[in-house]
Amino acid sequence: MNKSKLNVAIIGLGTVGSGVIKLLKRQKNNIKNRTGIELELVAISAKNKRKKRSIDISPYRWIASPITIARDPDVDVIVELIGDMDNTARKVIKEAINNGKHIVTANKSLLAKEGSSFEELAKKKSVFLRYEAAVAGGIPIIKVLQDSLIVNKISKLYGVINGTCNFILTKMEAEGREYTDVFSEAQQLGYVESDPRLDIGGIDSAHKLALLSCLAFGTSLDLKGVKTEGIDHISIEDIDEAHLIGYKIKLLATAEYQKKLLRQEVSPKLIRKDSPIAQVNGSTNIIAIEGEEIGTTIFSGPGAGMGPTASSVVSDLVAIASRKSKSTFLNGDKNFSGKRDKTLTKESSFYLRFVLKDKPGVIARLSGKLGSCGISINQMKQKPLPKQKATLIMTTHKTVRKNLEKALNDIRRLKICEQRPVSIEIEEI
Amino acid sequence: MNKSKLNVAIIGLGTVGSGVIKLLKRQKNNIKNRTGIELELVAISAKNKRKKRSIDISPYRWIASPITIARDPDVDVIVELIGDMDNTARKVIKEAINNGKHIVTANKSLLAKEGSSFEELAKKKSVFLRYEAAVAGGIPIIKVLQDSLIVNKISKLYGVINGTCNFILTKMEAEGREYTDVFSEAQQLGYVESDPRLDIGGIDSAHKLALLSCLAFGTSLDLKGVKTEGIDHISIEDIDEAHLIGYKIKLLATAEYQKKLLRQEVSPKLIRKDSPIAQVNGSTNIIAIEGEEIGTTIFSGPGAGMGPTASSVVSDLVAIASRKSKSTFLNGDKNFSGKRDKTLTKESSFYLRFVLKDKPGVIARLSGKLGSCGISINQMKQKPLPKQKATLIMTTHKTVRKNLEKALNDIRRLKICEQRPVSIEIEEI
Repeated sequence: MNKSKLNVAIIGLGTVGSGVIKLLKRQKNNIKNRTGIELELVAISAKNKRKKRSIDISPYRWIASPITIARDPDVDVIVELIGDMDNTARKVIKEAINNGKHIVTANKSLLAKEGSSFEELAKKKSVFLRYEAAVAGGIPIIKVLQDSLIVNKISKLYGVINGTCNFILTKMEAEGREYTDVFSEAQQLGYVESDPRLDIGGIDSAHKLALLSCLAFGTSLDLKGVKTEGIDHISIEDIDEAHLIGYKIKLLATAEYQKKLLRQEVSPKLIRKDSPIAQVNGSTNIIAIEGEEIGTTIFSGPGAGMGPTASSVVSDLVAIASRKSKSTFLNGDKNFSGKRDKTLTKESSFYLRFVLKDKPGVIARLSGKLGSCGISINQMKQKPLPKQKATLIMTTHKTVRKNLEKALNDIRRLKICEQRPVSIEIEEI
Repeated sequence: MNKSKLNVAIIGLGTVGSGVIKLLKRQKNNIKNRTGIELELVAISAKNKRKKRSIDISPYRWIASPITIARDPDVDVIVELIGDMDNTARKVIKEAINNGKHIVTANKSLLAKEGSSFEELAKKKSVFLRYEAAVAGGIPIIKVLQDSLIVNKISKLYGVINGTCNFILTKMEAEGREYTDVFSEAQQLGYVESDPRLDIGGIDSAHKLALLSCLAFGTSLDLKGVKTEGIDHISIEDIDEAHLIGYKIKLLATAEYQKKLLRQEVSPKLIRKDSPIAQVNGSTNIIAIEGEEIGTTIFSGPGAGMGPTASSVVSDLVAIASRKSKSTFLNGDKNFSGKRDKTLTKESSFYLRFVLKDKPGVIARLSGKLGSCGISINQMKQKPLPKQKATLIMTTHKTVRKNLEKALNDIRRLKICEQRPVSIEIEEI
């Protein structure tokens, strides 16, 4: 039943592509001995042949045009690692599927947008589409959701799935440095995508969450349904104040299905220090899954990097050779009888920070607005700032976000704020 | 390619068996919608039909003899949940395989002993043998090792995989109570197997480690190669002293393959408080895997319980219906060029506790024996005890266990110890 030999072509030879070549070379015999499958690298392609790389690419057939590879009769499976730079990846994948080739891709942004149409085409052409490397590098979370947890009713999935943001927040906290300072360092280290909004704007997390959420709940892929907020407004002061009341700040991706409402959200959250999620530092990823039967299961590991991501790509190649594949994006909402929670009706407590003009009556007016939106204050403190300003920090009792947003709008209209108020949800996990 | 309907028989209707019936009933439509597979429960069997159960078994065909079920032509797959009480499970599995039936079992002790012979027979009869529920309840660790990490060279696998021991150690620490006291409580709560040595003697962990280790390293199943030590000699004093120097005590299962030496070991270890392993409390299981490519990936979740274990059983049924199976026990050592480390040549630091006669010269004689075995002391403290006795607690610098064991034997022969010295390895993970 298995096709014991698979001819592989790799398009895109950055960190991950080079890692796949290395891994295939090093583990070829091991893979053959343990699975009976032979993975043969028959062609490669990238933008620039002459670029300095950590691997010797001379033994492999170089094909300059990715589209030509997608049509090559000798190729069984295309490993697409071009990324989201232009329209090439989309074209290559479609062309390859149309030519009867299986696809392995790590392209989360493309999948989050076009996963369903790719899968429809793949089904028509009877080829496999796999993407373990697209989410959380070395953690086999796609396979776990597709295979092992398929018999569960999952109620919640949450985690830290963007290593760059977690690196920045961890470093701010550890070294007491400001966001802009640590962000520049991350950029210099090459940790930030060429469009930084993808990372720090939470968009990359949103892409990944959309993929996970559709697997976990059996719904259609709904990237637009992910409410997305980034980390660039988080100040070291917020991190310090959170610390004082027992929390850390993490960029949390959450998908929750409760009371027939599906909620998908990426945003900074205050998370209790002793939670496993709060203890994940640097570029490590962590994903927790709460299910009706399984309770809470937690997976953590490197979120990116050559080795982990390449390992996921090659495990997909082995799965394809073993004729294993699952439909994921095509179920649509047919098994989903709930609604999507666009307005985020969940009740939560919030951390708020205001920079105010330090004048008599300011706090009375601000807290009046909170009160009239039904928001009551739990803890509050005021700290003086130079130039007749003051910082006001508080946590609220539980309220729905809609009420909070109304209150913050009303407060802004009072013209007492020196900058946009910061609000971060407190997530009790 | 898939057989879309599978006729299932369950033998053994304890917690897990009842959980599987519940789950099949509740999730039948969900499973069918999401995987296209229909799981039909066609027969059940257990020791006592009239026993009070949390489920209504009247809708299902009752067959008193498990062997009769194993021969029933209407049954495609046997879910064996009898446990290790007598020889029945072994006989039923062999008979069922001989009659062309697939097997799903949670029977780790039986698998650790007979896995290879079962698999040989299953291969001959072209049926599948699956056992996700045998290790770490709700964590899909078997599938992760078989599928996702197969392309890795794993160097180390370690974790806490016996919930009962972890419950006892966690409770001792949290409540400052002695081992015997908490052990009795665990027994009253029904957490301890009828033969308590299985849990507290580390044997259950050894069974599970043998299964994981053969999957991780591609070696033959080698239960006898697991050096096994339990927790019944751990005192609250050890836990308190470990705490003072920044450690917790956990029953750790470790399989490590380094420098062509394979080491398999279950024993209490001192583990740094801030390690994820140390933070796993109660009956939760945790397993960490270090691989050449993936770095460290960590999986945690409920180690037992009706829901998680039943979920793993049913995911195996879905996998069988999807014609997925892997050979695990049959590779033997053909991909393994190393040796087995029977003498544990690894270098470690150790925590030692002696109860000594409080007489002049005692410490000099004791430390002399350590010194002559090449063991040097890192930290040391002495505390007086009533009746002219004293407790001596120390940590050593790195040494091999062989040297330590020689030194402890020499010290015992000095007749200065009031009880057997306690030694616990310090594992820096």
